Amino acid sequence: MTPRKRQNFERLLNPRHIAFVGGADAAVAIGEARRAGFAGEMWVVNPRRDKLAGLPCVATIADLPEAPDAVFLAIPAPFVPETVAELGRMGAGGIVCYTAGFGEAHEAGRALEEQLKAAIGDMVLIGPNCYGLINYVGHSALWPFAHGGFCPGYGAAIITQSGMFSSDITMSQRSLPLAYMASAGNQADLGLTELVDLLCVRPEVRAIGLHIEGLSDIPAFEKAALKALRAGTPVVALKTGRSAIGETLTLSHTGSLAGSAELYEALFERVGVISVTNPSQLLETVKFLCVAGAPDGPEVMGFTCSGGGATMLADHGEAIGLRYPAPDAAARVALTELLPPIATVSNPLDYTTPIWGQAHHTKPVFAEALARVPAQATLLVQDYPAPGLDETEELYLNDGMAFAEAAREAGLPAAICATIPENIGAHIREAFIRRGVAPMQGVHETLNAIRDAAWWKAARTRILSAVPGPLVPGRASGAVRLVTEAQGKEMLADAGLPVPTGRVTRAGTLAETAQEIGFPVALKMMVPGLAHKTEAGAVALGIGSAETLLEAAMKMRVAVAAYRETVVTDAFLVESMAPPPLAELVVGIRRDAQFGLAMTLGSGGILVELLGDTVSLLLPATDAEISAALDRLKVAALLNGFRGRPAADRSALVAALSGLADYAVTNRATVAEIEINPLFVYEKGVLAVDVLMQVDDVGT
Amino acid sequence: MTPRKRQNFERLLNPRHIAFVGGADAAVAIGEARRAGFAGEMWVVNPRRDKLAGLPCVATIADLPEAPDAVFLAIPAPFVPETVAELGRMGAGGIVCYTAGFGEAHEAGRALEEQLKAAIGDMVLIGPNCYGLINYVGHSALWPFAHGGFCPGYGAAIITQSGMFSSDITMSQRSLPLAYMASAGNQADLGLTELVDLLCVRPEVRAIGLHIEGLSDIPAFEKAALKALRAGTPVVALKTGRSAIGETLTLSHTGSLAGSAELYEALFERVGVISVTNPSQLLETVKFLCVAGAPDGPEVMGFTCSGGGATMLADHGEAIGLRYPAPDAAARVALTELLPPIATVSNPLDYTTPIWGQAHHTKPVFAEALARVPAQATLLVQDYPAPGLDETEELYLNDGMAFAEAAREAGLPAAICATIPENIGAHIREAFIRRGVAPMQGVHETLNAIRDAAWWKAARTRILSAVPGPLVPGRASGAVRLVTEAQGKEMLADAGLPVPTGRVTRAGTLAETAQEIGFPVALKMMVPGLAHKTEAGAVALGIGSAETLLEAAMKMRVAVAAYRETVVTDAFLVESMAPPPLAELVVGIRRDAQFGLAMTLGSGGILVELLGDTVSLLLPATDAEISAALDRLKVAALLNGFRGRPAADRSALVAALSGLADYAVTNRATVAEIEINPLFVYEKGVLAVDVLMQVDDVGT
Repeated sequence: MTPRKRQNFERLLNPRHIAFVGGADAAVAIGEARRAGFAGEMWVVNPRRDKLAGLPCVATIADLPEAPDAVFLAIPAPFVPETVAELGRMGAGGIVCYTAGFGEAHEAGRALEEQLKAAIGDMVLIGPNCYGLINYVGHSALWPFAHGGFCPGYGAAIITQSGMFSSDITMSQRSLPLAYMASAGNQADLGLTELVDLLCVRPEVRAIGLHIEGLSDIPAFEKAALKALRAGTPVVALKTGRSAIGETLTLSHTGSLAGSAELYEALFERVGVISVTNPSQLLETVKFLCVAGAPDGPEVMGFTCSGGGATMLADHGEAIGLRYPAPDAAARVALTELLPPIATVSNPLDYTTPIWGQAHHTKPVFAEALARVPAQATLLVQDYPAPGLDETEELYLNDGMAFAEAAREAGLPAAICATIPENIGAHIREAFIRRGVAPMQGVHETLNAIRDAAWWKAARTRILSAVPGPLVPGRASGAVRLVTEAQGKEMLADAGLPVPTGRVTRAGTLAETAQEIGFPVALKMMVPGLAHKTEAGAVALGIGSAETLLEAAMKMRVAVAAYRETVVTDAFLVESMAPPPLAELVVGIRRDAQFGLAMTLGSGGILVELLGDTVSLLLPATDAEISAALDRLKVAALLNGFRGRPAADRSALVAALSGLADYAVTNRATVAEIEINPLFVYEKGVLAVDVLMQVDDVGT
Repeated sequence: MTPRKRQNFERLLNPRHIAFVGGADAAVAIGEARRAGFAGEMWVVNPRRDKLAGLPCVATIADLPEAPDAVFLAIPAPFVPETVAELGRMGAGGIVCYTAGFGEAHEAGRALEEQLKAAIGDMVLIGPNCYGLINYVGHSALWPFAHGGFCPGYGAAIITQSGMFSSDITMSQRSLPLAYMASAGNQADLGLTELVDLLCVRPEVRAIGLHIEGLSDIPAFEKAALKALRAGTPVVALKTGRSAIGETLTLSHTGSLAGSAELYEALFERVGVISVTNPSQLLETVKFLCVAGAPDGPEVMGFTCSGGGATMLADHGEAIGLRYPAPDAAARVALTELLPPIATVSNPLDYTTPIWGQAHHTKPVFAEALARVPAQATLLVQDYPAPGLDETEELYLNDGMAFAEAAREAGLPAAICATIPENIGAHIREAFIRRGVAPMQGVHETLNAIRDAAWWKAARTRILSAVPGPLVPGRASGAVRLVTEAQGKEMLADAGLPVPTGRVTRAGTLAETAQEIGFPVALKMMVPGLAHKTEAGAVALGIGSAETLLEAAMKMRVAVAAYRETVVTDAFLVESMAPPPLAELVVGIRRDAQFGLAMTLGSGGILVELLGDTVSLLLPATDAEISAALDRLKVAALLNGFRGRPAADRSALVAALSGLADYAVTNRATVAEIEINPLFVYEKGVLAVDVLMQVDDVGT
C-alpha cells in the first residue's frame, strides 16, 4: 500500500468532514454519524432534494466546499465508477460504498466492479456492497443502519465480511470494548487483509476480531497477520464455510472460495491467529484479550462461592487443557486460617457462603491464594441477581471488587465469570472493565478464551523466534502425469529421503539383481501412469528366493495384462524388504490454488483409514513447526515411545520431512503432488516405502 | 413412595397454608412467597418476636391454627429433628428445610441427619441444606433468596443439587418457561430421583432439567427416568464432576460420589436422558423442548436473511449430525419464483434483503419451503436490534411472525435463532412463545437443542419398544481372586462364548494333546493368580511341531521360575491358534458400587491403546443396545466392512456379547470381573482368544 493510501485511510478513519451522497440510505447514515457523536462537518450531495436529514444538499460533487476526507456513497451502481473517479480527481480521502449490485450480483456487476477498482487510485474504499466503518474511539461513523456499541477509549477492531453480522455485533449486550467496526463487503480496495494491516498497529486496538468467509490472497494475509503478531495485537478469527453446505453457500453468497477448512487451520496455526467457531466465543475471546490481556501460561487460579460453580470450572477447564495448580502444603495452611471451617482448600476454590460479601474476609483469601498458587491468570465465578431482584448485588460486588484488587496486586489477567451468560448486567460489567477485569459471560466461553489467549502468547514467542519463509503463491495445477515409483524414489533420494535399496531391472536379470540386494525382496512392475499397483497385481512382497522371484514376475505379467488401463512392461523394481517399523505415517504434499504448497501428515495403516488422523502444514515450514505438527497426530503416542515401546527417531523423521518440504518448494514449478504411503519410522532412521509422485505434464 | 407421601407432596407443592419457622431467613422466605403471588395463609413461628415481615408470630408449632400444608424451616440444626417430629404428629404436609449443618458438614451433622430422616414419617421433606421449592404455575414459593423466573402457564421442572445454581437459573434472562424449581440439597427425603418421579407426570411439566452432582441410587433413578420417558416428558441432565478435580470437589462439597462419567453417559443413553455439558445449553435445550417440542427427526429447514447466518447454520449443523435436506427440482422452481433474483435456492435458505420485512413476500417463501422440503423442524435466524436502536424491529417481527404462522401450518417444531444470544429481547421472546415458537439464543445452542430433542424422540421409541430389565443393584467387590485362563475359558464356554479348541494337560502328554488338537498351537502355563502371563514368559504362540512344543515348555519353566510372584506348575493349556481376524475387540465386565454391572466394549489392539476407543453399557442390556453400542466405536467401520473388506459377523458378535452379559448378570454373586482381550471377530463367528476372570474369594 502506498504511503498516500495510508494517509487517505487515516482521513477516512478520522475525517474532518464527511460527504453523504445519496437519498434515503444517506439520510440513515447521517443519523448514525450523529449517533456516533461526529463533530466534524457533514455535507450532502443530492440533486433532487434541498435538505436531507436536516442538512442542506448540494446538487453535485463539484459543488462540495472542498475535497471531503470521507464519503458515504449510496447511489445506483451504474453511477458509482464515475463518481468515484470524480472524487479522486478532487482529492477526496476515502469512501464507504454502500451500493450493491457489483461483483456479488451478476456479470454486468463484475464489469462495473472492475471499473470501480480502476477509479479508486490513491483514495481508499471500503465496499462496495458493505455496511462500512464505525470509529468508536474517534466518534465517527459511515454506516447505513442503526448501530450500538460500547467503547471505554480502547477496544477491538472487528472486521467482517457480512454486513448483517457486523450489525448484530454492534447490537450485542456484553460490553465488548470496540475501537473500530468495519464491514468489508466485496473488498474491491480495502479487504480484511488490508484492514488488519492498517489497524493492528494502532495503540487503541488491543485485539482484532475477524469474520472470514474466504480470503483471496493468502500470502498477503500471512504478512498482515505476522505484522499484527509483531505488534502484539492478537487476532481472533471466526472462519465460516467449513462444512460442505457452508462452502457452497459461501461461494453463492459472496463469490469467494471458502477454501479447505484444514488449510485455514494450518494458516492460523502458522501465524498465531486464534480460531473460534461461534459468534459468542469470538466476542468473549476478544473481550478477554482487550480487557485482561493474554496470560503467560494456561495455569489458572479459580474462585467461586459455590461447590457447583467450582466443579463446572474444573470439568471444562480440564477437558480443554487448562491447569489448576493445586495449593501446596504451606498454601493449605495459610488458606485454612482464612477460610470458614466448612471450606475445603482446593483450586478451583469455593470460599463458601459464611464469608460471602465480606471483603475484609474474602480479599485476604484472594490475595493469599494468588500469592501462593503458581497461576498465570485468575477468575471468580459470580452470577449477579437480575434487575429488580438486586437486594444482594452489593454483597456480590464486595467480593468482586476485592478480587479485582487482589488480581491487580498480583499482576495477573483476571476475569469475572457468569455461569449463565446474561447474569452480569451492563453497569457491573463496566465497573469491572474500569478495573481491568474482563466481565466474561458463560463458563465455557470464559475458559476457552483464557486457554486461547495463553495459546496466543506462547504461539507468538514460538513463531517470532523462527518465522517461516513467506508462503509460496498458490496456483492451480494444469495437466499432470504420474511418474513411476522408481523415478519417484530417485527424486525422494535427491531430496535426502531414505528409500529402500533397490534397482530397476529387466526380467532377465531379476535373480542376479535380487542376489546383490539380498533376500527377502519386494518386486514391483514399473508401469508409467499406474496409480493402483496393488490392485493391478503389480506388487509382490517378502520374496525369499530366486525361484519365488521368477514365479512372482511371471504371475505379475499375467495379472497386469488382465488389469484394464495398463500395459505390461519389462521394467521391474527389485527392492530389499523394509523391516517392520515402530510407526507408519502417510505424508502428502500438494499444490493448492489458494494456499500454495501444503504438507499433510497422517497416521499410517489402519489408523488413517479409520480415523482420518491428519494434520496439515503450509510450506515452507520450520523444523519446529513440523515437529509440533507431528505432536498433534494421535500416532504421536507411538512416535514418543508408547507404553514402554522404544521412541521413534524424531530427529531423522523431522529432517526427512523438512528435506521433502524444501524439495517441494524448490521444485514447485514441476512437482504437482507427492504421496508417501507408508513412511516407516524406526528407532534409527526412516524409510519411504512407497511413493506416488505427479509432475506437471509439459508434453515432454 | 406411599400414597400418603404423594398426597403430602401435593400439599407441599400447592399449599393452602405455609408456616414459616425461624427468623431472618424466614422473613426473606415470606417475601419470596409474596413475590410468587402466594394467596393462601401464611403463619410464622418465632418465640422471640411478635411480628416477622409484617406477619404476627406464634411462639411454638403447637400454637399454629392447624396443621400446615407446607413448612419453611430455618432454625438451628440441633432443633430440627424434634421440630420435624412434632410437625409430623400434628399432620403437616411437607417441609423445606433450609437449615444447613447436617450430613454435608461434620460427623455430628451426619448423626443429626439420621435423626431427621427418622422423624419425617409420612410427610415429605426437601433438604436440609437447600434452597427449597418454587411453584411458578401455582404461585407459591418456599425459598430463602430473591428469585426471578418466567411462566406462561406451563414449563420446565428444574431440579438441582446446588442452591446457588438454581438461584442463578431463576435470575436468567432468556424466558425459559418455568413450572417448578427445586433445589434438593442433602436429599434426606425427596431427592432428584423422587422429584423426577413426582413431577414428570404433571401435564404442566413439559420437560425436566436436572443438575446432577452424584446420584445415590442408580436403579431408582433408572425407574424414575423410564417413568418420565413413558409420560413423554424429556429429561435433560447437566452432570458435573466429570473431571478428576471435579470429582474430588463433588465429594468434598456434597459428600456424594461423582461416579464414573462414562457410566453416567451409559445410564443416560439407556434411559433416554439428554446429556449436556454447560448451563446455557441446559436452559436452551429445555426451552426448546417446552415451547416447540421434539421433532420426528434431525432434518431441518433453515431460513436466514444473511449469507453469513446461513453458513453458520450449515457449519455447525453438519458438524453435529443435523441434516438440511436440499430442495428438489420442483421446490427450486417454486421457490425461485417467490425469491428475489439475487437469492440462491438452498437449505439453509438466505431469502435476501429485497423482501426483508415484507410478510406478503416472506410468508409464501416460508410456507412453500416447508411444504416441499422434507424437514422435521424449522428455524429462522434473526438478531433483533438492541433496546433504543429498534427502529427496524417491526420489520424483523413481520418476518418472524410470518415464519411462526408458516411453521404452525406445517405442524413443525420451530425456533427463532439469535446468532448472538442476547440479540432477542424479552418482549420478542415472549411474543414467539405465545405462538409456540421457541426463541433460541446462540447458533450452537439452538442446533444442539434441536439435534438432542430429535435424539430424545428416537431414543424414546427405541427404548420403550424393548425396555431392558431393571439394573442390578451395585455392590463394591470384597476380596477377589484370579482364576486361570483355562478355567475362565470354561466359564465363557458355559456362557455360550466360542473359545479356541484347547485342553489342559501335563508336560508328559503335551505332544499328544497338540497332535489331537492339530498344529499350529498356542502353549500357556496355567499359574493360579498370574495376571501377566506374557511378561512372565508363560505364553508361546504359533508352535508348529512337537519338538518346538517341548522346547517351548522347557523354556517356559525357566522363565516362569525366574519371574517373581509365581510358582512353576505342571499344568499347560494347549490350544489351536486362532486365525487372524477382521477386527479385534476388548470386552470388559465389571461390578460397580453405584451402577451395578457394566460392560465396556473397545477397539482392540493398538486402537484401544492409542485412542481409548471404548463405550460402556449398563446391564442387563438388550441386543439392540449392544448393537448400537458397537456402532459408537471407531472400530465399527471395520465391523461394517470398511473400504471393500468383508463385513464382520455382527449377529454372532451380538449373540456372544449378549450371552456374556447374561452370564455376568446370572453369576453376579460370584463373578467380579471379566476381561476378554482380544475377542477376535471373523466373517463367520467370533473367538475369545484370551480372558482374565476374577471371582469373589470366599476363602474356598
